[in-house]
Amino acid sequence: MITLASDFGSAYPAAMKGVILSKSDARLVDVAHDLPRQNVRAAAFWLRETLPYFPPAVHLAVIDPGVGTDRRAVALRVGDHVLVGPDNGVLRPAARRIARESDDEPTREAYEIQVENPDSMTFHGRDVFAPAAADAHGIGADALDAIERFAPIEWSGLTDCVFPDPERDDDGISGEVLVVDDFGNCITNIPGNEIRAYDRVAVNGEPTPVGDTFEAVLRGSRLVTVGSHGYVECDVNHGRGDEAFGLAQGDTVRLGFD
Amino acid sequence: MITLASDFGSAYPAAMKGVILSKSDARLVDVAHDLPRQNVRAAAFWLRETLPYFPPAVHLAVIDPGVGTDRRAVALRVGDHVLVGPDNGVLRPAARRIARESDDEPTREAYEIQVENPDSMTFHGRDVFAPAAADAHGIGADALDAIERFAPIEWSGLTDCVFPDPERDDDGISGEVLVVDDFGNCITNIPGNEIRAYDRVAVNGEPTPVGDTFEAVLRGSRLVTVGSHGYVECDVNHGRGDEAFGLAQGDTVRLGFD
Amino acid sequence: MITLASDFGSAYPAAMKGVILSKSDARLVDVAHDLPRQNVRAAAFWLRETLPYFPPAVHLAVIDPGVGTDRRAVALRVGDHVLVGPDNGVLRPAARRIARESDDEPTREAYEIQVENPDSMTFHGRDVFAPAAADAHGIGADALDAIERFAPIEWSGLTDCVFPDPERDDDGISGEVLVVDDFGNCITNIPGNEIRAYDRVAVNGEPTPVGDTFEAVLRGSRLVTVGSHGYVECDVNHGRGDEAFGLAQGDTVRLGFD
Repeated sequence: MITLASDFGSAYPAAMKGVILSKSDARLVDVAHDLPRQNVRAAAFWLRETLPYFPPAVHLAVIDPGVGTDRRAVALRVGDHVLVGPDNGVLRPAARRIARESDDEPTREAYEIQVENPDSMTFHGRDVFAPAAADAHGIGADALDAIERFAPIEWSGLTDCVFPDPERDDDGISGEVLVVDDFGNCITNIPGNEIRAYDRVAVNGEPTPVGDTFEAVLRGSRLVTVGSHGYVECDVNHGRGDEAFGLAQGDTVRLGFD
Repeated sequence: MITLASDFGSAYPAAMKGVILSKSDARLVDVAHDLPRQNVRAAAFWLRETLPYFPPAVHLAVIDPGVGTDRRAVALRVGDHVLVGPDNGVLRPAARRIARESDDEPTREAYEIQVENPDSMTFHGRDVFAPAAADAHGIGADALDAIERFAPIEWSGLTDCVFPDPERDDDGISGEVLVVDDFGNCITNIPGNEIRAYDRVAVNGEPTPVGDTFEAVLRGSRLVTVGSHGYVECDVNHGRGDEAFGLAQGDTVRLGFD
Repeated sequence: MITLASDFGSAYPAAMKGVILSKSDARLVDVAHDLPRQNVRAAAFWLRETLPYFPPAVHLAVIDPGVGTDRRAVALRVGDHVLVGPDNGVLRPAARRIARESDDEPTREAYEIQVENPDSMTFHGRDVFAPAAADAHGIGADALDAIERFAPIEWSGLTDCVFPDPERDDDGISGEVLVVDDFGNCITNIPGNEIRAYDRVAVNGEPTPVGDTFEAVLRGSRLVTVGSHGYVECDVNHGRGDEAFGLAQGDTVRLGFD
């Protein structure tokens, strides 16, 4: 199985699929191809929240604003999973979570995919990453070192993308919006447990009901809830939280308890 | 085969796919994941117009504005098909059509999917419906009662979504816009046969040509035609009917014949 | 394998998939269903740039603004590939490239798909093309003539879509924008080799850096680069080239070298 994720939109992913299927009969599963454009941080979040649900697979993820520069192309093994993409941080949060949710300490290996004269400087998804994913699938996670153009590198030297922890103080907690989803829900880095004791919190100073479900408030009304990722979300029932709260990715969210 | 439909947009459907593929080797087919947001009525229409074309399958459909409330999670058997989703009406028009188009009177069974401590209150697609669809696929449509958390319920107690019939009178017919498609075509509940005898009808008072094809009128011009669903549609050749006719889902459409 | 491409957006492609899967167990691969609406020229471009990467397959492509008129429905064999869609030019650039990239001179055959009383005049994707693709897949590329409703026609009589060549003169080259991609990149018909010797060219009079990669210029800045299709593109790093250059599909692009 090969999963595919990108910010390519419409037709480009098909070229990647064609390249893979010319080299492999792997089952293909689309994760998403409309991830926020050139937004490594958002893509890293979504990959972390989706890839760990899959059975062992090769995960191809091409969100690659630095394509053609000297950023490395990499393949990361985590147990029976292989993640293929640019070394810009997009893969590591997913790799970390897959490792954490494994029963044992999974084997971790990192490889640089050596690139010689790709057909293009701007579409490594098609010319570098898709063939690498097909080859990794063909040979298996435990034999990546047999692929000649995969050169072992240090895991610790990989570019990371770290989501910050929120900061607690006497009367509240300060976090940030990790990502805004397609519904406009603002997903923060504040663990859901922080609000479970409250019926109401202040969000950046504004009193806001805490709800178990969207329907806990009237349609069009704001609430904070514990989203499917386990984090506090700033949402609107039948509406967009980002607009109602005036929040965007990276913005500070202060929850006040009093 | 498991088909998947939702209003989840970009990355959330992948978590459902991962959950299913961890439990099942079923073939997955995406119906659509950009159905109109939290619009049960539109989703019910689209499922009715697409699912009956499939061979026997498990159909997972998560358009679920009431997620986390006491609306039930259900699995419906219609012959060799199984529909899995919330009991908010979204499944029943498709179930009805599948039954109607079957050669025999198909077996109909309804089950409540009993939910205990899902991982989240807001993502039953991943935590409740996807596992249920995988289990239903694994055991087969004729053995759903062997799934322990599937509790038989009465079919007649299921929430329905009924599309109204239009009303005829002496000089015309009054219906409504069931749904607006992505092209802006306004699909009504008025059967196509009603306009086949005419070259021109009045749409809410405005004389409008009747065409067999979009190209029956100049580009940018309005027409009514019989759409692929067999209903009268208010369209524009190379344009958007909703804008040209000033129509939205649920609006009244009066066709005058004179 | 059957690939599917259309401009249908959300739910309509699922009806095509259902029809195919009712007649065939072919593997289905989505190319894209959000190709620019009713834009035969853009679709012809994207099919040419994606389908040749696939292994032998049946390629279903329904971008069909003339649906229901007397434009023909056709199936084109090119070696082991079969392309199915309307005879409006959308298939021929892809067919030409598949032929050109074949090792031998591939067999080319053209068939008109004879249509009798389709269920609808406006959804031949579901009622004409999907069944034809399933049948072509079932019988194989080398036996299309055994499908009764496939009537042999002359290849030379097929509607074509020809992308013009640019015109060189003493101090520059004049081409046009073939298509604007989802990123806003303006892909021209000017071969990339034309700019490889330069650090800077004039684009419609405006001096513009030539870059190997988007990151060759500051974020938000314009550049011309050689895109993944081998053509000169007018792009913006982390932005939209179409807006920055004021270009749309079909517009003239004059590159001045001095």
